[in-house]
Amino acid sequence: MSVEELSQEERDTWMRALKQWSLAREGKAIERTFEFADFREAWGFMSQVALMAEKRDHHPEWFNVYNKVEITLTTHDAGGLSLRDVNMAKAIDKLV
Amino acid sequence: MSVEELSQEERDTWMRALKQWSLAREGKAIERTFEFADFREAWGFMSQVALMAEKRDHHPEWFNVYNKVEITLTTHDAGGLSLRDVNMAKAIDKLV
Repeated sequence: MSVEELSQEERDTWMRALKQWSLAREGKAIERTFEFADFREAWGFMSQVALMAEKRDHHPEWFNVYNKVEITLTTHDAGGLSLRDVNMAKAIDKLV
Repeated sequence: MSVEELSQEERDTWMRALKQWSLAREGKAIERTFEFADFREAWGFMSQVALMAEKRDHHPEWFNVYNKVEITLTTHDAGGLSLRDVNMAKAIDKLV
């Protein structure tokens, strides 16, 4: 899978598709916050993302407190956003 | 277990015992950063902490990126640090 940084045009197109995600770090990353009923549900979600991340060898930066999970995706090898982040975001969205 | 905020004297005593932890948020929280070989190991550690947190009904605020885990402990009900944080920190330290 390409790890080239998306062009600005590609990025804009993808951001329209990934409605729930916002650009962060001056366009170098995307982020989304998830809220669940409690920690048990949040952790269940995180466990699914963890397995997915390990399989893809593409890992999120994420923060959790109780029922809240904040995920940031970026591709260090690309120095910004790549298709790997877009595909990961789409896969994460399918979990919820 | 007490959820009263620790006195400054109790806090100072405990911080000498919890050598690896630092005070954060103006003494209202403690934090420690853990580094592992890779995500798989970091996640294994987080899974153990998650089960412990759920059992104690005392949940960390934590951040993970790849092999790094930053844990912050505070007791919202106490408005700061309590014995629950100290005991949780000691239990977490035993995992590594």
